[in-house]
Amino acid sequence: MSYFSSNFKLGILGGGQLGKMMLYVTRKFDTTTKVIDSSQDAPARLACDEFIQGDILDYDTVLDFGRSVDVLTFEIENVNVDALEQLEHEGKKVFPSSKTLRIIQNKATQKLFYTDHNIPTAPFSRFAYVSEIEDAITNGGLELPFVWKSARFGYDGQGVKVVRSFSDVKQLPKGECIAEDLIPFKNELSVIVSRNVSGEIKTYPTVEMEFHPEANQVEYVLCPARLPKEITDKAERLALKVSEAFQHVGLLAVEMFLTKDDEILVNEVAPRPHNSGHQSIEGSFTCQFEQHIRAILDLPLGNTESKVASVMVNLVGAENHTGDVVYKNIETIMAMDGVTPHIYGKKQTRPFRKMGHVTIVDKDINKARSIAQSVKETIEVISK
Amino acid sequence: MSYFSSNFKLGILGGGQLGKMMLYVTRKFDTTTKVIDSSQDAPARLACDEFIQGDILDYDTVLDFGRSVDVLTFEIENVNVDALEQLEHEGKKVFPSSKTLRIIQNKATQKLFYTDHNIPTAPFSRFAYVSEIEDAITNGGLELPFVWKSARFGYDGQGVKVVRSFSDVKQLPKGECIAEDLIPFKNELSVIVSRNVSGEIKTYPTVEMEFHPEANQVEYVLCPARLPKEITDKAERLALKVSEAFQHVGLLAVEMFLTKDDEILVNEVAPRPHNSGHQSIEGSFTCQFEQHIRAILDLPLGNTESKVASVMVNLVGAENHTGDVVYKNIETIMAMDGVTPHIYGKKQTRPFRKMGHVTIVDKDINKARSIAQSVKETIEVISK
Repeated sequence: MSYFSSNFKLGILGGGQLGKMMLYVTRKFDTTTKVIDSSQDAPARLACDEFIQGDILDYDTVLDFGRSVDVLTFEIENVNVDALEQLEHEGKKVFPSSKTLRIIQNKATQKLFYTDHNIPTAPFSRFAYVSEIEDAITNGGLELPFVWKSARFGYDGQGVKVVRSFSDVKQLPKGECIAEDLIPFKNELSVIVSRNVSGEIKTYPTVEMEFHPEANQVEYVLCPARLPKEITDKAERLALKVSEAFQHVGLLAVEMFLTKDDEILVNEVAPRPHNSGHQSIEGSFTCQFEQHIRAILDLPLGNTESKVASVMVNLVGAENHTGDVVYKNIETIMAMDGVTPHIYGKKQTRPFRKMGHVTIVDKDINKARSIAQSVKETIEVISK
Repeated sequence: MSYFSSNFKLGILGGGQLGKMMLYVTRKFDTTTKVIDSSQDAPARLACDEFIQGDILDYDTVLDFGRSVDVLTFEIENVNVDALEQLEHEGKKVFPSSKTLRIIQNKATQKLFYTDHNIPTAPFSRFAYVSEIEDAITNGGLELPFVWKSARFGYDGQGVKVVRSFSDVKQLPKGECIAEDLIPFKNELSVIVSRNVSGEIKTYPTVEMEFHPEANQVEYVLCPARLPKEITDKAERLALKVSEAFQHVGLLAVEMFLTKDDEILVNEVAPRPHNSGHQSIEGSFTCQFEQHIRAILDLPLGNTESKVASVMVNLVGAENHTGDVVYKNIETIMAMDGVTPHIYGKKQTRPFRKMGHVTIVDKDINKARSIAQSVKETIEVISK
């Protein structure tokens, strides 16, 4: 069956901003789509052929949804993976696979996967319960400070905390987790690797991420990274090694730390379009959303090179603002050169909620970064 | 009222491919939209907040539709202009205005407008009836060959014919028309001028159009045109003069002939995103659809420069094929460098029907043109 036919139907689990941006591509290719999300106001409620409201963590809901489409993908890792596995048993095409997702969904499993595959990553210990952390500290098996990560449902940095004292441990949520060495790093990098069903592989250039110090959310993404070629080449080789280990289908965003000794460590991966690739919409020959769709539909992958340099700024809800959203000064930033806002369409803002992003493109990365700073200082995501 | 608010609603008359591509932008900005088209299967039926089926040539339908939105625009000239004028009297924002549209809708009025404003255009005569043409030829007032153009409802070259003999005249449709001198030209050029409500103006670079000799439809659009800078500068100055004369709001695509003597004549204009600007989606800092939306919402205009060179190939239905469409070899062209297909989503093909377009981008215009040729020779729009 051709994907360019009304008989074909692509299913997307999750209707957030990533699903919404995938739909830019499915509209361009006229791919018939069906989207499911728990919210009737989900950003991807429009632009699909069919939208249904439902819980993507529920086994039966995902199973029923998957059976009604030809190829199934997801825009978020928090989906019912048992249902995906059952669908695969029934012969349904699910990309990325349940196997890939199962490893990634649990951060402890993901870290063990890296050590099993000789992929450099920060040293860590796994704990079934937070109480075990206290014992480990008391017994000298774990030293402060360390980075605590919830094994499950970490998203947008909410499942990550730097633990500096014994009393910090008391504040941690219960449940399975890892304690990771606090690595002093110079930069955070990301490389997105695309791999289609037939095994064709293409990597995007290494990007550099600048984080907000408090919210642990990406503030700026720069493409290309302002780093020597030997470093970015090394990052791309490592990302390819990770991709090879997973044998994933679709995108794999590989987040990495560049240490003070120019060692590169894998932090974590996401098997989908990623925040560190949004600037590809304006900057790259093929944007990450198109590449994901090409990969999972086993179409030839597109050119991952950049047309121009690009910087992405996340638009997150301002502190002390909760309620109906207002994008203050958006007209002002739109007058700046090479600036494109993407508004996700979430009606309510709250502190640090991802409400959109802005891409700044320019032939010169430093000029783009400088305009990005002005954008960041000008626009405000507040409530009415 | 902010355009980035759910209280605001943009109305679009016509739900064809141009309306569909406008919706790429309204989704990105999260602008609330309402679209009307006579076909329930219109390409723009998805991605708007509300789609209604209705006749945009009907006075009451357009009036009711216009009253239900805050700003009204159109993606096709064949709309009821009297209703637009009435809406303006009621204080509704209609962009482009009924005044601009009324001049453009009638090709005779449009040509007279050029002569009134000292805008160079091919010499012509206006006829209220085709029978008057026969008299003019007999009396020596009109010489063969000439170009006949229907004054009304010319679209995609269907209202244009080269008349070489008296018997050709007999084949012409009745009604108001013009007879234009057949100008031997070297090239057809187009410049898209954008102008927002506040009067800010930006022009896109001059593009070169290569036409299909029989169907009188654009086959390739090249940006930039492969012409000396003095010629493209001259074309851009002329386009600005036309824009100045119209005082339009939104885009104005100015199609021109470059004669053998390097004279530039205005052929015709379109007050909307245009086939000669589709490559701007991939090639330009700001695509024409975004620019149109920015202009009519009185947002600052975006940068009209090119990131890379681009060529656009129209995908039209193959001869001898009518019925459910198949895009033969689409996977093959997607393996070519810098190739992006846009499928409009029309379910039925027929000879020369515009079914989509393909953009080819490359840093080198000649390489892009060469790949475009391969695309053209490979993909086929046929019926099942």
